[in-house]
Amino acid sequence: MPILNKDMTLCISLAARPSNIGTRFHNYLYDALELNYVYKAFAPVDLAQAVAGIRGLGIRGAAVSMPYKEDVIELIDVMDASASAIDSVNTIVNNDGVLTAYNTDYLAIARLLSVNAVDPATTVLLRGSGGMAKAVAAAMHDAGFASVTIVARNEERGRVLAALYDFAWLPEVGEATAGMLINVTPLGMTGADASVQSFSDETVAQAQIVFDVVALPSETPLIRAGRATGKQLITGAEVIAIQAEEQFVLYTGVRPSPELVREASEFSRA
Amino acid sequence: MPILNKDMTLCISLAARPSNIGTRFHNYLYDALELNYVYKAFAPVDLAQAVAGIRGLGIRGAAVSMPYKEDVIELIDVMDASASAIDSVNTIVNNDGVLTAYNTDYLAIARLLSVNAVDPATTVLLRGSGGMAKAVAAAMHDAGFASVTIVARNEERGRVLAALYDFAWLPEVGEATAGMLINVTPLGMTGADASVQSFSDETVAQAQIVFDVVALPSETPLIRAGRATGKQLITGAEVIAIQAEEQFVLYTGVRPSPELVREASEFSRA
Repeated sequence: MPILNKDMTLCISLAARPSNIGTRFHNYLYDALELNYVYKAFAPVDLAQAVAGIRGLGIRGAAVSMPYKEDVIELIDVMDASASAIDSVNTIVNNDGVLTAYNTDYLAIARLLSVNAVDPATTVLLRGSGGMAKAVAAAMHDAGFASVTIVARNEERGRVLAALYDFAWLPEVGEATAGMLINVTPLGMTGADASVQSFSDETVAQAQIVFDVVALPSETPLIRAGRATGKQLITGAEVIAIQAEEQFVLYTGVRPSPELVREASEFSRA
Repeated sequence: MPILNKDMTLCISLAARPSNIGTRFHNYLYDALELNYVYKAFAPVDLAQAVAGIRGLGIRGAAVSMPYKEDVIELIDVMDASASAIDSVNTIVNNDGVLTAYNTDYLAIARLLSVNAVDPATTVLLRGSGGMAKAVAAAMHDAGFASVTIVARNEERGRVLAALYDFAWLPEVGEATAGMLINVTPLGMTGADASVQSFSDETVAQAQIVFDVVALPSETPLIRAGRATGKQLITGAEVIAIQAEEQFVLYTGVRPSPELVREASEFSRA
Protein backbone atom coordinates (compact mmCIF):
# COMPACT_ATOMS: atom_id res chain seq x y z
CA MET A 1 0.00 0.00 0.00
CA PRO A 2 1.30 3.47 -0.73
CA ILE A 3 1.53 4.84 2.84
CA LEU A 4 1.20 8.45 1.83
CA ASN A 5 0.95 11.28 4.31
CA LYS A 6 -0.42 14.78 3.98
CA ASP A 7 2.98 16.47 4.33
CA MET A 8 4.59 14.74 1.34
CA THR A 9 6.03 17.03 -1.30
CA LEU A 10 4.69 16.14 -4.73
CA CYS A 11 6.73 16.10 -7.92
CA ILE A 12 5.10 15.19 -11.22
CA SER A 13 5.71 14.73 -14.91
CA LEU A 14 3.75 16.13 -17.84
CA ALA A 15 3.79 14.03 -21.00
CA ALA A 16 1.21 13.10 -23.61
CA ARG A 17 2.26 9.46 -23.26
CA PRO A 18 3.96 9.03 -19.88
CA SER A 19 6.21 6.06 -19.18
CA ASN A 20 6.61 4.56 -15.72
CA ILE A 21 10.35 5.30 -15.60
CA GLY A 22 10.27 8.67 -13.81
CA THR A 23 7.63 7.56 -11.32
CA ARG A 24 9.69 4.52 -10.37
CA PHE A 25 13.09 6.28 -10.45
CA HIS A 26 12.15 9.17 -8.19
CA ASN A 27 10.01 7.19 -5.74
CA TYR A 28 12.83 4.64 -5.38
CA LEU A 29 15.28 7.38 -4.41
CA TYR A 30 12.81 9.17 -2.11
CA ASP A 31 12.41 5.92 -0.24
CA ALA A 32 16.12 5.05 -0.16
CA LEU A 33 17.03 8.53 1.09
CA GLU A 34 14.03 8.79 3.44
CA LEU A 35 12.75 11.98 1.83
CA ASN A 36 9.07 12.77 2.41
CA TYR A 37 8.37 13.17 -1.30
CA VAL A 38 6.13 11.39 -3.75
CA TYR A 39 6.19 11.35 -7.57
CA LYS A 40 3.46 10.69 -10.09
CA ALA A 41 3.29 10.94 -13.90
CA PHE A 42 0.42 12.83 -15.55
CA ALA A 43 -0.91 13.06 -19.10
CA PRO A 44 -2.31 16.59 -18.83
CA VAL A 45 -5.72 17.44 -20.25
CA ASP A 46 -4.70 21.09 -20.68
CA LEU A 47 -1.12 22.32 -20.32
CA ALA A 48 -1.89 25.84 -19.06
CA GLN A 49 -4.27 24.51 -16.41
CA ALA A 50 -1.79 21.82 -15.43
CA VAL A 51 0.87 24.49 -14.86
CA ALA A 52 -1.70 26.54 -12.91
CA GLY A 53 -2.12 23.42 -10.81
CA ILE A 54 1.64 23.32 -10.11
CA ARG A 55 1.30 26.82 -8.69
CA GLY A 56 -2.08 26.36 -7.01
CA LEU A 57 -1.33 23.03 -5.35
CA GLY A 58 2.27 23.91 -4.49
CA ILE A 59 3.71 21.03 -6.53
CA ARG A 60 7.50 21.20 -6.13
CA GLY A 61 8.67 20.11 -9.54
CA ALA A 62 7.57 18.80 -12.91
CA ALA A 63 9.34 16.92 -15.66
CA VAL A 64 8.16 18.10 -19.07
CA SER A 65 8.16 15.70 -22.03
CA MET A 66 6.78 15.54 -25.54
CA PRO A 67 4.93 17.50 -26.82
CA TYR A 68 5.12 20.25 -24.19
CA LYS A 69 8.82 21.16 -24.08
CA GLU A 70 8.41 24.36 -26.06
CA ASP A 71 4.77 25.26 -25.38
CA VAL A 72 5.46 25.41 -21.66
CA ILE A 73 7.95 28.28 -22.00
CA GLU A 74 5.29 31.00 -21.98
CA LEU A 75 3.78 29.56 -18.80
CA ILE A 76 6.87 29.71 -16.57
CA ASP A 77 8.61 32.63 -14.88
CA VAL A 78 12.38 32.14 -15.23
CA MET A 79 14.44 30.33 -17.89
CA ASP A 80 17.70 28.76 -16.69
CA ALA A 81 20.54 28.88 -19.23
CA SER A 82 20.22 25.13 -19.87
CA ALA A 83 16.68 25.72 -21.19
CA SER A 84 17.08 29.12 -22.82
CA ALA A 85 20.11 27.89 -24.82
CA ILE A 86 17.81 25.56 -26.73
CA ASP A 87 14.34 27.07 -26.16
CA SER A 88 13.29 23.75 -24.71
CA VAL A 89 12.22 22.88 -21.18
CA ASN A 90 12.23 19.45 -19.59
CA THR A 91 12.13 20.45 -15.92
CA ILE A 92 10.17 22.99 -13.87
CA VAL A 93 11.13 23.84 -10.31
CA ASN A 94 8.62 25.71 -8.11
CA ASN A 95 10.28 27.93 -5.50
CA ASP A 96 7.45 29.49 -3.47
CA GLY A 97 5.39 30.19 -6.57
CA VAL A 98 8.25 31.18 -8.90
CA LEU A 99 8.54 28.59 -11.67
CA THR A 100 12.05 28.18 -13.10
CA ALA A 101 12.63 26.09 -16.22
CA TYR A 102 15.68 23.91 -16.83
CA ASN A 103 16.76 21.41 -19.44
CA THR A 104 18.45 18.46 -17.79
CA ASP A 105 18.70 16.62 -21.12
CA TYR A 106 21.28 19.24 -22.07
CA LEU A 107 23.03 18.73 -18.73
CA ALA A 108 23.00 14.94 -19.19
CA ILE A 109 24.49 15.06 -22.70
CA ALA A 110 27.21 17.42 -21.49
CA ARG A 111 28.06 15.06 -18.65
CA LEU A 112 28.09 11.95 -20.88
CA LEU A 113 30.46 13.60 -23.37
CA SER A 114 32.74 14.49 -20.48
CA VAL A 115 32.53 11.14 -18.63
CA ASN A 116 33.21 9.24 -21.85
CA ALA A 117 36.14 11.56 -22.60
CA VAL A 118 34.99 12.08 -26.18
CA ASP A 119 37.61 14.21 -27.99
CA PRO A 120 35.90 17.42 -29.24
CA ALA A 121 37.90 17.04 -32.44
CA THR A 122 35.84 13.93 -33.26
CA THR A 123 33.71 14.20 -36.39
CA VAL A 124 30.03 13.66 -35.63
CA LEU A 125 26.89 12.68 -37.53
CA LEU A 126 23.90 13.80 -35.46
CA ARG A 127 20.64 12.40 -36.84
CA GLY A 128 17.50 14.33 -35.84
CA SER A 129 16.21 17.89 -35.55
CA GLY A 130 13.63 17.84 -32.74
CA GLY A 131 13.85 19.20 -29.21
CA MET A 132 16.26 16.54 -27.99
CA ALA A 133 18.48 17.01 -31.06
CA LYS A 134 18.68 20.69 -30.12
CA ALA A 135 19.84 19.73 -26.64
CA VAL A 136 22.49 17.39 -28.06
CA ALA A 137 23.70 19.96 -30.60
CA ALA A 138 23.92 22.71 -27.99
CA ALA A 139 25.79 20.50 -25.52
CA MET A 140 28.25 19.42 -28.23
CA HIS A 141 28.83 22.98 -29.34
CA ASP A 142 29.36 24.13 -25.75
CA ALA A 143 31.83 21.25 -25.22
CA GLY A 144 33.89 22.45 -28.19
CA PHE A 145 32.73 20.07 -30.92
CA ALA A 146 32.90 21.80 -34.31
CA SER A 147 32.88 19.02 -36.94
CA VAL A 148 29.24 18.11 -36.54
CA THR A 149 26.79 17.32 -39.34
CA ILE A 150 23.08 17.46 -38.62
CA VAL A 151 21.26 14.77 -40.61
CA ALA A 152 17.58 15.63 -40.99
CA ARG A 153 15.07 15.08 -43.75
CA ASN A 154 13.21 18.20 -42.68
CA GLU A 155 15.40 20.70 -44.50
CA GLU A 156 14.16 23.81 -42.75
CA ARG A 157 14.59 22.43 -39.24
CA GLY A 158 17.87 20.75 -40.12
CA ARG A 159 19.37 23.89 -41.65
CA VAL A 160 18.15 26.11 -38.78
CA LEU A 161 19.67 23.80 -36.17
CA ALA A 162 22.95 23.49 -38.08
CA ALA A 163 23.19 27.25 -38.60
CA LEU A 164 22.77 27.88 -34.88
CA TYR A 165 26.19 26.35 -34.20
CA ASP A 166 27.87 26.63 -37.59
CA PHE A 167 27.39 22.89 -38.12
CA ALA A 168 26.83 21.21 -41.49
CA TRP A 169 23.52 19.74 -42.67
CA LEU A 170 22.66 16.69 -44.78
CA PRO A 171 19.19 15.42 -45.67
CA GLU A 172 20.26 11.73 -45.53
CA VAL A 173 23.27 9.84 -44.13
CA GLY A 174 24.06 8.40 -47.58
CA GLU A 175 27.76 7.69 -47.88
CA ALA A 176 28.73 10.00 -45.00
CA THR A 177 30.93 8.64 -42.22
CA ALA A 178 32.17 10.06 -38.92
CA GLY A 179 33.99 9.08 -35.75
CA MET A 180 30.85 9.42 -33.67
CA LEU A 181 27.26 8.58 -34.63
CA ILE A 182 24.37 9.97 -32.62
CA ASN A 183 20.75 9.00 -33.16
CA VAL A 184 18.21 11.48 -31.84
CA THR A 185 15.23 10.26 -33.87
CA PRO A 186 12.56 7.72 -32.82
CA LEU A 187 14.20 5.09 -35.07
CA GLY A 188 14.69 1.96 -32.98
CA MET A 189 12.11 3.01 -30.39
CA THR A 190 9.27 0.67 -29.39
CA GLY A 191 6.54 1.10 -31.97
CA ALA A 192 6.42 1.27 -35.74
CA ASP A 193 10.15 2.00 -36.12
CA ALA A 194 11.41 -0.52 -33.55
CA SER A 195 13.35 -2.58 -36.05
CA VAL A 196 14.83 0.35 -38.01
CA GLN A 197 18.59 0.83 -37.57
CA SER A 198 19.23 4.59 -37.64
CA PHE A 199 22.72 4.28 -39.20
CA SER A 200 23.67 1.53 -41.63
CA ASP A 201 26.14 -1.26 -40.84
CA GLU A 202 28.58 0.40 -43.25
CA THR A 203 28.42 3.73 -41.44
CA VAL A 204 28.70 2.01 -38.05
CA ALA A 205 31.77 0.13 -39.27
CA GLN A 206 33.56 3.44 -39.91
CA ALA A 207 32.76 4.96 -36.48
CA GLN A 208 34.50 4.64 -33.12
CA ILE A 209 31.65 5.80 -30.90
CA VAL A 210 27.93 4.99 -31.20
CA PHE A 211 25.45 7.01 -29.18
CA ASP A 212 21.70 6.36 -29.27
CA VAL A 213 19.40 8.63 -27.30
CA VAL A 214 16.49 6.18 -27.61
CA ALA A 215 15.79 4.79 -24.14
CA LEU A 216 12.86 2.45 -24.69
CA PRO A 217 14.42 0.09 -25.40
CA SER A 218 18.00 1.16 -24.88
CA GLU A 219 19.12 -1.93 -26.83
CA THR A 220 18.16 -0.46 -30.19
CA PRO A 221 19.23 -1.93 -33.54
CA LEU A 222 21.94 0.78 -33.65
CA ILE A 223 23.30 -0.07 -30.20
CA ARG A 224 23.23 -3.80 -31.05
CA ALA A 225 25.14 -3.11 -34.27
CA GLY A 226 27.69 -1.04 -32.35
CA ARG A 227 28.03 -3.67 -29.65
CA ALA A 228 28.49 -6.44 -32.21
CA THR A 229 31.38 -4.54 -33.78
CA GLY A 230 33.07 -3.47 -30.54
CA LYS A 231 32.31 0.24 -30.67
CA GLN A 232 32.37 2.55 -27.64
CA LEU A 233 28.68 2.87 -26.68
CA ILE A 234 26.54 5.51 -25.02
CA THR A 235 22.87 4.58 -24.54
CA GLY A 236 19.59 6.34 -23.98
CA ALA A 237 19.34 4.54 -20.63
CA GLU A 238 22.34 6.56 -19.50
CA VAL A 239 20.84 9.80 -20.77
CA ILE A 240 17.55 9.22 -19.04
CA ALA A 241 19.20 8.21 -15.76
CA ILE A 242 21.49 11.25 -15.67
CA GLN A 243 18.81 13.72 -16.67
CA ALA A 244 16.53 12.21 -14.02
CA GLU A 245 19.33 12.45 -11.45
CA GLU A 246 19.75 16.14 -12.26
CA GLN A 247 16.00 16.65 -11.88
CA PHE A 248 16.14 14.84 -8.57
CA VAL A 249 18.89 17.19 -7.35
CA LEU A 250 16.92 20.24 -8.50
CA TYR A 251 13.76 19.09 -6.71
CA THR A 252 15.29 17.87 -3.44
CA GLY A 253 18.69 19.55 -3.12
CA VAL A 254 20.12 16.08 -2.44
CA ARG A 255 22.65 14.38 -4.75
CA PRO A 256 22.28 10.59 -4.51
CA SER A 257 25.39 8.39 -4.73
CA PRO A 258 26.26 6.90 -8.14
CA GLU A 259 25.40 3.48 -6.72
CA LEU A 260 21.94 4.61 -5.66
CA VAL A 261 21.34 6.22 -9.04
CA ARG A 262 22.31 2.92 -10.69
CA GLU A 263 19.91 1.01 -8.44
CA ALA A 264 17.09 3.47 -9.07
CA SER A 265 17.74 3.40 -12.79
CA GLU A 266 17.59 -0.41 -12.87
CA PHE A 267 14.45 -0.37 -10.73
CA SER A 268 12.85 2.23 -12.99
CA ARG A 269 13.30 0.04 -16.06
CA ALA A 270 12.31 -3.26 -14.45
CA MET B 1 8.04 2.66 -0.35
CA PRO B 2 5.02 4.05 -2.16
CA ILE B 3 5.09 1.87 -5.32
CA LEU B 4 3.25 4.36 -7.45
CA ASN B 5 2.67 3.86 -11.14
CA LYS B 6 1.91 6.30 -13.91
CA ASP B 7 -1.64 5.06 -14.47
CA MET B 8 -2.88 5.70 -10.94
CA THR B 9 -5.91 7.93 -10.65
CA LEU B 10 -5.27 10.78 -8.23
CA CYS B 11 -7.76 12.12 -5.70
CA ILE B 12 -6.85 15.00 -3.43
CA SER B 13 -8.11 17.22 -0.66
CA LEU B 14 -7.98 21.01 -0.43
CA ALA B 15 -7.80 22.43 3.08
CA ALA B 16 -5.92 25.28 4.70
CA ARG B 17 -4.84 22.91 7.47
CA PRO B 18 -5.11 19.34 6.17
CA SER B 19 -5.25 16.40 8.53
CA ASN B 20 -3.89 12.97 7.64
CA ILE B 21 -7.29 11.31 8.00
CA GLY B 22 -8.45 11.48 4.36
CA THR B 23 -5.07 10.48 2.98
CA ARG B 24 -4.97 7.40 5.20
CA PHE B 25 -8.67 6.50 4.82
CA HIS B 26 -8.76 6.55 1.03
CA ASN B 27 -5.35 4.95 0.45
CA TYR B 28 -6.26 2.14 2.86
CA LEU B 29 -9.40 1.35 0.86
CA TYR B 30 -7.66 1.68 -2.52
CA ASP B 31 -5.19 -0.91 -1.36
CA ALA B 32 -7.76 -3.24 0.21
CA LEU B 33 -9.95 -3.12 -2.90
CA GLU B 34 -6.99 -3.23 -5.33
CA LEU B 35 -8.00 0.00 -7.04
CA ASN B 36 -5.23 1.79 -8.95
CA TYR B 37 -5.86 5.07 -7.16
CA VAL B 38 -3.76 7.27 -4.92
CA TYR B 39 -4.83 10.06 -2.53
CA LYS B 40 -2.92 13.03 -1.19
CA ALA B 41 -3.91 16.07 0.89
CA PHE B 42 -2.97 19.57 -0.25
CA ALA B 43 -2.96 22.98 1.40
CA PRO B 44 -3.52 25.04 -1.76
CA VAL B 45 -1.53 28.19 -2.42
CA ASP B 46 -4.33 29.57 -4.59
CA LEU B 47 -7.80 28.02 -4.80
CA ALA B 48 -8.61 28.99 -8.40
CA GLN B 49 -5.28 27.67 -9.65
CA ALA B 50 -5.69 24.51 -7.60
CA VAL B 51 -9.08 23.88 -9.24
CA ALA B 52 -7.49 24.63 -12.62
CA GLY B 53 -5.00 21.92 -11.70
CA ILE B 54 -7.84 19.45 -11.07
CA ARG B 55 -8.97 20.09 -14.65
CA GLY B 56 -5.52 20.35 -16.23
CA LEU B 57 -4.01 17.29 -14.56
CA GLY B 58 -7.18 15.22 -14.81
CA ILE B 59 -7.44 14.73 -11.03
CA ARG B 60 -10.52 12.57 -10.40
CA GLY B 61 -11.83 14.05 -7.19
CA ALA B 62 -11.16 16.54 -4.43
CA ALA B 63 -12.39 16.88 -0.88
CA VAL B 64 -12.94 20.52 0.01
CA SER B 65 -12.52 21.68 3.61
CA MET B 66 -12.24 24.94 5.54
CA PRO B 67 -12.07 27.70 4.37
CA TYR B 68 -12.91 26.80 0.77
CA LYS B 69 -16.39 25.22 0.98
CA GLU B 70 -18.21 28.30 -0.29
CA ASP B 71 -15.49 30.04 -2.33
CA VAL B 72 -15.14 26.98 -4.54
CA ILE B 73 -18.73 27.21 -5.82
CA GLU B 74 -17.93 29.74 -8.56
CA LEU B 75 -15.11 27.51 -9.84
CA ILE B 76 -17.12 24.36 -10.52
CA ASP B 77 -19.58 23.46 -13.27
CA VAL B 78 -22.51 21.60 -11.71
CA MET B 79 -24.00 21.72 -8.19
CA ASP B 80 -25.54 18.50 -6.91
CA ALA B 81 -28.61 18.98 -4.70
CA SER B 82 -26.60 17.99 -1.60
CA ALA B 83 -24.36 21.04 -2.16
CA SER B 84 -26.86 23.52 -3.57
CA ALA B 85 -29.26 22.92 -0.65
CA ILE B 86 -26.70 24.50 1.68
CA ASP B 87 -24.49 26.51 -0.69
CA SER B 88 -21.53 24.54 0.61
CA VAL B 89 -19.26 22.08 -1.19
CA ASN B 90 -17.10 19.41 0.39
CA THR B 91 -16.54 17.18 -2.63
CA ILE B 92 -15.69 17.75 -6.30
CA VAL B 93 -15.94 14.98 -8.88
CA ASN B 94 -14.26 15.43 -12.27
CA ASN B 95 -16.04 13.61 -15.09
CA ASP B 96 -13.99 14.21 -18.23
CA GLY B 97 -13.49 17.87 -17.38
CA VAL B 98 -16.94 18.57 -15.96
CA LEU B 99 -16.60 19.36 -12.24
CA THR B 100 -19.66 18.46 -10.14
CA ALA B 101 -19.90 19.57 -6.52
CA TYR B 102 -21.46 17.54 -3.73
CA ASN B 103 -21.78 17.83 0.01
CA THR B 104 -21.21 14.45 1.61
CA ASP B 105 -21.40 15.98 5.10
CA TYR B 106 -25.09 16.51 4.37
CA LEU B 107 -25.35 12.91 3.15
CA ALA B 108 -23.53 11.63 6.25
CA ILE B 109 -25.77 13.50 8.68
CA ALA B 110 -28.86 12.24 6.88
CA ARG B 111 -27.58 8.67 7.10
CA LEU B 112 -26.67 8.95 10.80
CA LEU B 113 -30.12 10.27 11.69
CA SER B 114 -31.63 7.34 9.83
CA VAL B 115 -29.26 4.63 11.14
CA ASN B 116 -29.75 5.84 14.71
CA ALA B 117 -33.53 5.88 14.20
CA VAL B 118 -33.87 9.32 15.71
CA ASP B 119 -37.57 10.23 15.90
CA PRO B 120 -38.16 13.43 13.85
CA ALA B 121 -40.48 14.58 16.63
CA THR B 122 -37.46 14.90 18.94
CA THR B 123 -36.71 18.44 20.12
CA VAL B 124 -33.21 19.54 19.12
CA LEU B 125 -30.66 22.16 20.22
CA LEU B 126 -28.21 22.66 17.34
CA ARG B 127 -25.22 24.76 18.42
CA GLY B 128 -23.36 26.49 15.56
CA SER B 129 -24.03 28.49 12.40
CA GLY B 130 -21.10 27.72 10.07
CA GLY B 131 -20.99 25.60 6.91
CA MET B 132 -21.27 22.29 8.77
CA ALA B 133 -24.18 23.64 10.87
CA LYS B 134 -25.94 24.44 7.61
CA ALA B 135 -25.42 20.84 6.45
CA VAL B 136 -26.83 19.49 9.74
CA ALA B 137 -29.82 21.86 9.71
CA ALA B 138 -30.66 21.01 6.10
CA ALA B 139 -30.38 17.26 6.71
CA MET B 140 -32.61 17.52 9.80
CA HIS B 141 -35.21 19.58 7.96
CA ASP B 142 -35.19 17.17 5.03
CA ALA B 143 -35.62 14.25 7.49
CA GLY B 144 -38.75 15.90 8.93
CA PHE B 145 -37.35 17.47 12.11
CA ALA B 146 -39.32 20.63 12.97
CA SER B 147 -38.63 21.36 16.65
CA VAL B 148 -35.08 22.55 16.16
CA THR B 149 -33.46 25.55 17.85
CA ILE B 150 -30.29 27.01 16.37
CA VAL B 151 -27.98 28.25 19.14
CA ALA B 152 -25.50 30.82 17.80
CA ARG B 153 -23.96 33.92 19.29
CA ASN B 154 -23.73 35.44 15.81
CA GLU B 155 -27.31 36.71 15.65
CA GLU B 156 -27.38 37.41 11.93
CA ARG B 157 -26.06 34.01 10.91
CA GLY B 158 -28.11 32.23 13.52
CA ARG B 159 -31.35 33.95 12.50
CA VAL B 160 -30.68 33.42 8.79
CA LEU B 161 -30.04 29.71 9.27
CA ALA B 162 -33.08 29.29 11.52
CA ALA B 163 -35.32 31.19 9.10
CA LEU B 164 -34.28 28.92 6.21
CA TYR B 165 -36.11 25.99 7.81
CA ASP B 166 -38.56 27.73 10.11
CA PHE B 167 -36.43 26.74 13.12
CA ALA B 168 -36.05 28.80 16.29
CA TRP B 169 -32.95 30.74 17.30
CA LEU B 170 -31.27 31.41 20.65
CA PRO B 171 -28.03 33.31 21.24
CA GLU B 172 -27.00 31.05 24.19
CA VAL B 173 -28.13 27.66 25.52
CA GLY B 174 -28.99 29.15 28.91
CA GLU B 175 -31.76 27.14 30.57
CA ALA B 176 -32.91 25.52 27.30
CA THR B 177 -33.23 21.74 27.16
CA ALA B 178 -34.03 19.29 24.37
CA GLY B 179 -34.17 15.60 23.62
CA MET B 180 -31.17 15.83 21.28
CA LEU B 181 -28.09 18.03 21.58
CA ILE B 182 -25.88 18.65 18.57
CA ASN B 183 -22.57 20.52 18.71
CA VAL B 184 -21.39 21.93 15.40
CA THR B 185 -18.90 24.45 16.80
CA PRO B 186 -15.14 23.95 17.39
CA LEU B 187 -15.76 23.62 21.15
CA GLY B 188 -13.98 20.47 22.30
CA MET B 189 -11.71 20.35 19.26
CA THR B 190 -7.93 20.06 19.67
CA GLY B 191 -6.64 23.58 20.24
CA ALA B 192 -7.68 26.51 22.39
CA ASP B 193 -11.19 25.15 23.05
CA ALA B 194 -10.21 21.51 23.64
CA SER B 195 -11.47 21.46 27.23
CA VAL B 196 -14.69 23.40 26.65
CA GLN B 197 -17.88 21.33 26.98
CA SER B 198 -20.33 22.67 24.38
CA PHE B 199 -23.46 21.89 26.44
CA SER B 200 -23.52 21.99 30.26
CA ASP B 201 -23.90 18.91 32.46
CA GLU B 202 -27.39 20.15 33.36
CA THR B 203 -28.44 20.33 29.69
CA VAL B 204 -26.87 16.94 28.94
CA ALA B 205 -28.77 15.44 31.91
CA GLN B 206 -32.10 16.43 30.29
CA ALA B 207 -31.26 14.99 26.83
CA GLN B 208 -31.59 11.46 25.43
CA ILE B 209 -29.22 11.80 22.46
CA VAL B 210 -25.87 13.61 22.32
CA PHE B 211 -24.30 14.27 18.91
CA ASP B 212 -20.94 16.01 18.53
CA VAL B 213 -19.66 16.73 15.02
CA VAL B 214 -16.12 17.39 16.31
CA ALA B 215 -13.88 14.60 15.01
CA LEU B 216 -10.45 15.50 16.35
CA PRO B 217 -10.73 14.21 18.95
CA SER B 218 -14.05 12.43 18.74
CA GLU B 219 -13.93 11.95 22.53
CA THR B 220 -14.84 15.57 23.27
CA PRO B 221 -15.90 16.83 26.71
CA LEU B 222 -19.51 16.68 25.44
CA ILE B 223 -19.23 13.06 24.30
CA ARG B 224 -17.53 12.12 27.58
CA ALA B 225 -20.32 13.78 29.54
CA GLY B 226 -22.91 11.97 27.46
CA ARG B 227 -21.11 8.65 27.83
CA ALA B 228 -20.79 9.10 31.60
CA THR B 229 -24.55 9.58 31.89
CA GLY B 230 -25.58 6.78 29.53
CA LYS B 231 -26.90 8.87 26.63
CA GLN B 232 -27.27 7.62 23.07
CA LEU B 233 -24.15 8.96 21.30
CA ILE B 234 -23.28 10.00 17.75
CA THR B 235 -19.68 11.14 17.24
CA GLY B 236 -17.70 13.19 14.75
CA ALA B 237 -15.68 10.08 13.97
CA GLU B 238 -18.85 8.54 12.53
CA VAL B 239 -19.62 11.67 10.51
CA ILE B 240 -16.14 11.85 9.03
CA ALA B 241 -16.08 8.13 8.20
CA ILE B 242 -19.47 8.19 6.47
CA GLN B 243 -18.81 11.41 4.55
CA ALA B 244 -15.46 9.95 3.46
CA GLU B 245 -17.17 6.70 2.44
CA GLU B 246 -19.62 8.68 0.29
CA GLN B 247 -16.69 10.54 -1.29
CA PHE B 248 -15.01 7.22 -1.93
CA VAL B 249 -18.13 5.93 -3.71
CA LEU B 250 -18.39 9.12 -5.78
CA TYR B 251 -14.72 8.89 -6.85
CA THR B 252 -14.47 5.18 -7.55
CA GLY B 253 -18.03 3.92 -8.11
CA VAL B 254 -17.26 1.18 -5.57
CA ARG B 255 -19.08 0.86 -2.21
CA PRO B 256 -16.79 -0.77 0.37
CA SER B 257 -18.29 -3.14 2.95
CA PRO B 258 -19.15 -1.69 6.39
CA GLU B 259 -16.34 -3.78 7.85
CA LEU B 260 -13.79 -2.32 5.44
CA VAL B 261 -15.03 1.21 6.15
CA ARG B 262 -14.58 0.50 9.88
CA GLU B 263 -11.04 -0.76 9.31
CA ALA B 264 -10.15 2.22 7.11
CA SER B 265 -11.64 4.61 9.61
CA GLU B 266 -9.61 3.09 12.45
CA PHE B 267 -6.47 3.13 10.31
CA SER B 268 -7.09 6.75 9.33
CA ARG B 269 -7.19 7.86 12.96
CA ALA B 270 -4.27 5.74 14.19
